[in-house]
Amino acid sequence: MTPDEFRAHGHRLIDWLADYRAGVAARPVISQTEPGQVKAALPAEPPAEPEPFDAVLADLDRVVMPGVTHWQHPRFFGYFPSNAALASVLGDLVSTGLGVIGLNWQASPALTELEEVVCGWMRQALGMSPAWSGVIQDTASTGSLLALLCARERTTNFSLARGGLQAEPKPLTVYVSAQSHSSVEKAALLAGFGRENVRAVPHDDAFALRPDALAAMVAADAAAGKRPCAVVATTGTTASTALDPIAGIAEVAARHQLWLHVDAAMAGSAMILPECRWMWDGIERADTLLLNPHKWLGAVFDCSLFYTRDPDHLIRVMSTNPSYLRTAADGRVTNYRDWGVPLGRRFRALKLWFLLRSEGLSGLQARLRRDLDNARWLADQVRVTPHWRVAAPVPLQTVCVVHEPPGVTGEALDAHTRAWAERVNRSGRAYLTPATLGGRWVVRVSVGAEQTTRADVEALWALVRSAAAGDAPGLA
Amino acid sequence: MTPDEFRAHGHRLIDWLADYRAGVAARPVISQTEPGQVKAALPAEPPAEPEPFDAVLADLDRVVMPGVTHWQHPRFFGYFPSNAALASVLGDLVSTGLGVIGLNWQASPALTELEEVVCGWMRQALGMSPAWSGVIQDTASTGSLLALLCARERTTNFSLARGGLQAEPKPLTVYVSAQSHSSVEKAALLAGFGRENVRAVPHDDAFALRPDALAAMVAADAAAGKRPCAVVATTGTTASTALDPIAGIAEVAARHQLWLHVDAAMAGSAMILPECRWMWDGIERADTLLLNPHKWLGAVFDCSLFYTRDPDHLIRVMSTNPSYLRTAADGRVTNYRDWGVPLGRRFRALKLWFLLRSEGLSGLQARLRRDLDNARWLADQVRVTPHWRVAAPVPLQTVCVVHEPPGVTGEALDAHTRAWAERVNRSGRAYLTPATLGGRWVVRVSVGAEQTTRADVEALWALVRSAAAGDAPGLA
Ligand SMILES: Cc1ncc(COP(=O)(O)O)c(C=O)c1O
Ligand SMILES: Cc1ncc(COP(=O)(O)O)c(C=O)c1O
Repeated sequence: MTPDEFRAHGHRLIDWLADYRAGVAARPVISQTEPGQVKAALPAEPPAEPEPFDAVLADLDRVVMPGVTHWQHPRFFGYFPSNAALASVLGDLVSTGLGVIGLNWQASPALTELEEVVCGWMRQALGMSPAWSGVIQDTASTGSLLALLCARERTTNFSLARGGLQAEPKPLTVYVSAQSHSSVEKAALLAGFGRENVRAVPHDDAFALRPDALAAMVAADAAAGKRPCAVVATTGTTASTALDPIAGIAEVAARHQLWLHVDAAMAGSAMILPECRWMWDGIERADTLLLNPHKWLGAVFDCSLFYTRDPDHLIRVMSTNPSYLRTAADGRVTNYRDWGVPLGRRFRALKLWFLLRSEGLSGLQARLRRDLDNARWLADQVRVTPHWRVAAPVPLQTVCVVHEPPGVTGEALDAHTRAWAERVNRSGRAYLTPATLGGRWVVRVSVGAEQTTRADVEALWALVRSAAAGDAPGLA
Repeated sequence: MTPDEFRAHGHRLIDWLADYRAGVAARPVISQTEPGQVKAALPAEPPAEPEPFDAVLADLDRVVMPGVTHWQHPRFFGYFPSNAALASVLGDLVSTGLGVIGLNWQASPALTELEEVVCGWMRQALGMSPAWSGVIQDTASTGSLLALLCARERTTNFSLARGGLQAEPKPLTVYVSAQSHSSVEKAALLAGFGRENVRAVPHDDAFALRPDALAAMVAADAAAGKRPCAVVATTGTTASTALDPIAGIAEVAARHQLWLHVDAAMAGSAMILPECRWMWDGIERADTLLLNPHKWLGAVFDCSLFYTRDPDHLIRVMSTNPSYLRTAADGRVTNYRDWGVPLGRRFRALKLWFLLRSEGLSGLQARLRRDLDNARWLADQVRVTPHWRVAAPVPLQTVCVVHEPPGVTGEALDAHTRAWAERVNRSGRAYLTPATLGGRWVVRVSVGAEQTTRADVEALWALVRSAAAGDAPGLA
């Protein structure tokens, strides 16, 4: 494709996307496709000869779009908001079009330095001290893996340079809570700790990890000949945005030299609001933390921020330095390849830079406050409605709801909960995610898609009540 | 930013990118910026209020572009080609604009199924049997980490479900060559094997790993009470595109139950040419393999293909299944989150789909054959020119060259080599990467940027000779 063809096709695609975003509210939120349908509509063999761009665009509409669940829909209340703000989309387009790779500073100095700048901007926006250094990773899953690798190597004094984890005399242990995200246990398993050495610390009624229980478990493990290594606290758990008490956990961590990693993947975005910062009180005592601007904040996926107070340690864990990557600038510049797993790196900073400048902090703050208001409004409605219950505190934008018809309990209640959520989802008029919380199914209403207004939340609440009453709403 | 604003700004950016690509040849290949210059040109504090899009675009030209090294330049001969073909850029734009996340099948069925389709297309295009299942990862670094995790868990019969690597009685060992990419050792260290358990198998004069030496090392380790676990072979090493003999290595691997992983990050793209497939003869006996369509093939970064013959094993190593990710479709569909580290996933298949359809296999094959011809032409020139030497076989598109002025040897020769490469790079007229090979510095000429024609290679050869003769060419 020549630059001139790109110009022509690119203009069409920009219009196509603008139309898509302008009209997304009219589509069913969740794809109505059956397993295998998209696959079956495409040739089994690769194209031998070039096809006209029109054919590709036609299949985009005919085959791909019916298979898309619309995360940018104003009535997407599933999982978590993953806002792809349009300014950020344009920033990413520049990255894609430039096609530069940041495998060292020289390979594109601006790629590295703009990343340093936006990580610094975000640090300030989140109210963090200058003691933190940041880097953009793909996801929180990767960030938690990095954190646990840093922890493993600190506790073992760099076993990777010797016999690895397999030469360690005493088993290292990691502490999480049952509400921690699954990516944390996954990270611990991939890092080689083993499931038996991952401890689930009890939580309180608000689903927050209990520092006293942590202290007791760590002491018992140490007495039993284990080496307590790391604790992962969550600011805003996935199921209910519970807030683990960082300050209390930091006390225990300091006493036992645990690496303290804070997973604020979802809720970290809210820390741009000064009134929310109490939620991670004590954060300056953590070793590493992460948050996903690709969730609520609006940077298009993938864009996960990872901060460490000890970049030299991270670099020592992650660095390799083959001859072909060395340049005269080494030592005076940041080589972000040594801050993560991948060697090649996209120019990811652009999408955050475009977002922050186009919206300004004030714009982002206003949108997040709107969402917090909407969630509070919904929680209030639920609370005052007979047979409805809010199943967890609502410090942020996620409301966990249960409908409890008289006499329906236990597994029957679970079945009812999942059935009405499924009716809502199948209708295409809204999308919600059920999850278990404290052993029972609840329905999470995660408010905060960029286009979601109060009217959308009101409509959702009406829809939810009718679905719970047994109505199967027609397709949108 | 509203859809209408996006439309207006998007059209401008498409034109900006089309102009950039059309005019990139006129720019100096390597950025002429000094460390810290980009950073210094930007405010230290985040923007409080929204800024007009014009201000962002102005800074893109003023601050960012002087800090960019142009990988899409026709005279980029550094590192490896990382072609961002314009059709692929448009495919990625669709992904970005849709803003959907593939954390399970239901979260966007087309994201998963199109990935299955393009992985199948590529499998066929590469001449691989249907025994392979594919997935798109970000990079080869991540793919090699996955492979070694799979190996670790097969050898230990899933130690991650028990006490992890730290509970294993005998140390596991991994075999690589000194020519393996640094990401392979890094993966072994992150997976917890420890540097002492990573063995560098000797290679032959062509820089290819020696199966006989591998067999001897494995036998010695086993006799010494170690557990040989995995071997990583490279099809197309980074320094010189050396070809490790897969068939011979597979023999040894089978005899000792080693996991055989093949890193074909760069050279894998060439396997779309039937005449190149001898290069990885024996590939069907590997357990996992990877290649980067984001290198020579033209899919914009990041797009690394990872294939396994045992997806169930991969899933068992990587899977987590929290309640909120479960859907009614589970069991009948692929959930790619269990095929890698990140939970969230971009709609990456689109960029490969757009590329394959727009260029057709015939188009891609023609471009790669052009590059192979150009590399052979350059190697022939070097060979017949007095005091010039080709330092390694040239099976593909990388030519390692040394200029040996009479009487200059050893460290003085290394200094000369690095000096003339630096003169070329500093000129901005072309970009080359020096590297060590067999203990001496050579200059890699990596042919294959999408826009590179024979004329560009001829110009490079003239430039290289004059730089080696001591001329400091003026800025382009
Ligand atoms: C608290 C928390 N941590 C981690 C994750 C995983 O995010 P990612 O997809 O970026 O790995 C999520 C959401 O999915 C989350 O809510
Ligand atoms: C043989 C080989 N393996 C792995 C890599 C690493 O690639 P990535 O940046 O995708 O991790 C490269 C190139 O950089 C390579 O040449």
